[in-house]
Amino acid sequence: MPVENLFSDLPTQPLPAELVDLLASQAGVRIKRIVSTGQASPDDFWYDQDEHEWVTVLQGAARLCFDDGEVLEMRVGDHLVINAHRKHRVDWTTPEEVTVWLAVFYPA
Amino acid sequence: MPVENLFSDLPTQPLPAELVDLLASQAGVRIKRIVSTGQASPDDFWYDQDEHEWVTVLQGAARLCFDDGEVLEMRVGDHLVINAHRKHRVDWTTPEEVTVWLAVFYPA
Repeated sequence: MPVENLFSDLPTQPLPAELVDLLASQAGVRIKRIVSTGQASPDDFWYDQDEHEWVTVLQGAARLCFDDGEVLEMRVGDHLVINAHRKHRVDWTTPEEVTVWLAVFYPA
Repeated sequence: MPVENLFSDLPTQPLPAELVDLLASQAGVRIKRIVSTGQASPDDFWYDQDEHEWVTVLQGAARLCFDDGEVLEMRVGDHLVINAHRKHRVDWTTPEEVTVWLAVFYPA
């Protein structure tokens, strides 16, 4: 049984897109590591998901925006549930270091 | 919408038992923070769970044992899926610092 590490295989320079690794998937539940190297969502893009998402930042820093105007600065260890269909976007991830997100998607 | 932090409210001295916080719960999925201050499972105790568990160590260090004889040293960021009914126990958590586990339980 392999044990892997959430901080392994991180990029050493900016990538053209986020890096997504599926860590576990079963019965509508998906656990993903998402690695950002300064990426943000396009200005006019909103995630509008059918599933709930619990998300945390394990390394780096980020800022989430919601279409109700809320803005969340995310530091290491900060976590929240984004309810299904709560529109949101990644407004910013730090260019200073690699940002490692852990996200759990589960049925609404 | 509250944002909380996985590393907040950690004990500053050993506790008599592990500290468990339910971070999210929906549709058979439970996300928990488990804080150990040197605890281990009793010698003859095995977890035998109906659900799959994805688990990682976010701070500290631990050792898992399985009834098939496998022993896993868990360092920060190490993660694995423990399949439902794979019997396991926490053989050791470091007494040197607080160990923070993140566990996602989901239907088998």
